[in-house]
Formats: sequence, C-alpha cells, structure tokens
Amino acid sequence: MSTAQYQVTGMTCGHCEASVREEVDGVAGVTDVQVSSATGSLTVTAAGDVDDAAILAAVTEAGYSAVRA
Amino acid sequence: MSTAQYQVTGMTCGHCEASVREEVDGVAGVTDVQVSSATGSLTVTAAGDVDDAAILAAVTEAGYSAVRA
Repeated sequence: MSTAQYQVTGMTCGHCEASVREEVDGVAGVTDVQVSSATGSLTVTAAGDVDDAAILAAVTEAGYSAVRA
Repeated sequence: MSTAQYQVTGMTCGHCEASVREEVDGVAGVTDVQVSSATGSLTVTAAGDVDDAAILAAVTEAGYSAVRA
C-alpha cells in the first residue's frame, strides 16, 4: 500500500472535488481519495504503488491540472 | 411568455451553473434558462408567467440562494 500527495489547480467548489474524486477513484488500484477544493490538496492511497501518470491523467480528464506535491 | 431575472449567490464554476440550470429547468412551464457563475445572473423564460416562488425554491434545492433582480 502506498500514498501520494498532489496539488490540484482550479477546483472552486464541492462539485469540482466530486469530479476529481470520481475520476481518480476510477484509476486501477486506488483504494482511497481525499480531495479539498479549499487547499487544492489531493491524497491518493493505492493497494500497490500509486501510478502518478494515471492519477495526473485522471485529474486532467476531470478538467483540472495537478502536480505531485 | 415571460422572462424574469434573478441574482444568485454562491456559484463558483460551471458545475454550479449546471446544478442551477438543471433544477430551474425542472420547474413547470420553464422554456429557457440562462445562468452565469461569473456574474451570478439567472434569466428564466417561461411559457406563461414565471413562478418566482418555484424558481427561488429550485435555486435553493440546487444549494444556492437567489433574489429577484
């Protein structure tokens, strides 16, 4: 199990959080997603290693951009 | 046919606009909804008279508050 933290840009409200959560939840192996529009923080827990590229792609798919924190 | 304008508080993004649009669209008689998170403006067109109370209730249902402009 591993955890990775990201900084997401552009989220303004709970709907935005939900969009990010939904996409990141869909990444293979992800077991927990914590996201805050107030701080921009995104914390992802995965069964194995967190797949950075897949997480960043999921955030992009949701309409936002992120970097590994 | 009639049109009424409202000022909505609390919308921050396109998801918020969509939430308001969806609820207001569901009010009986409503034929067009224009909403902007940037300005907070909500313009509603209805087949007959616009039912103020129903529109305000729909905005509340979406999670925001509005006043007739």
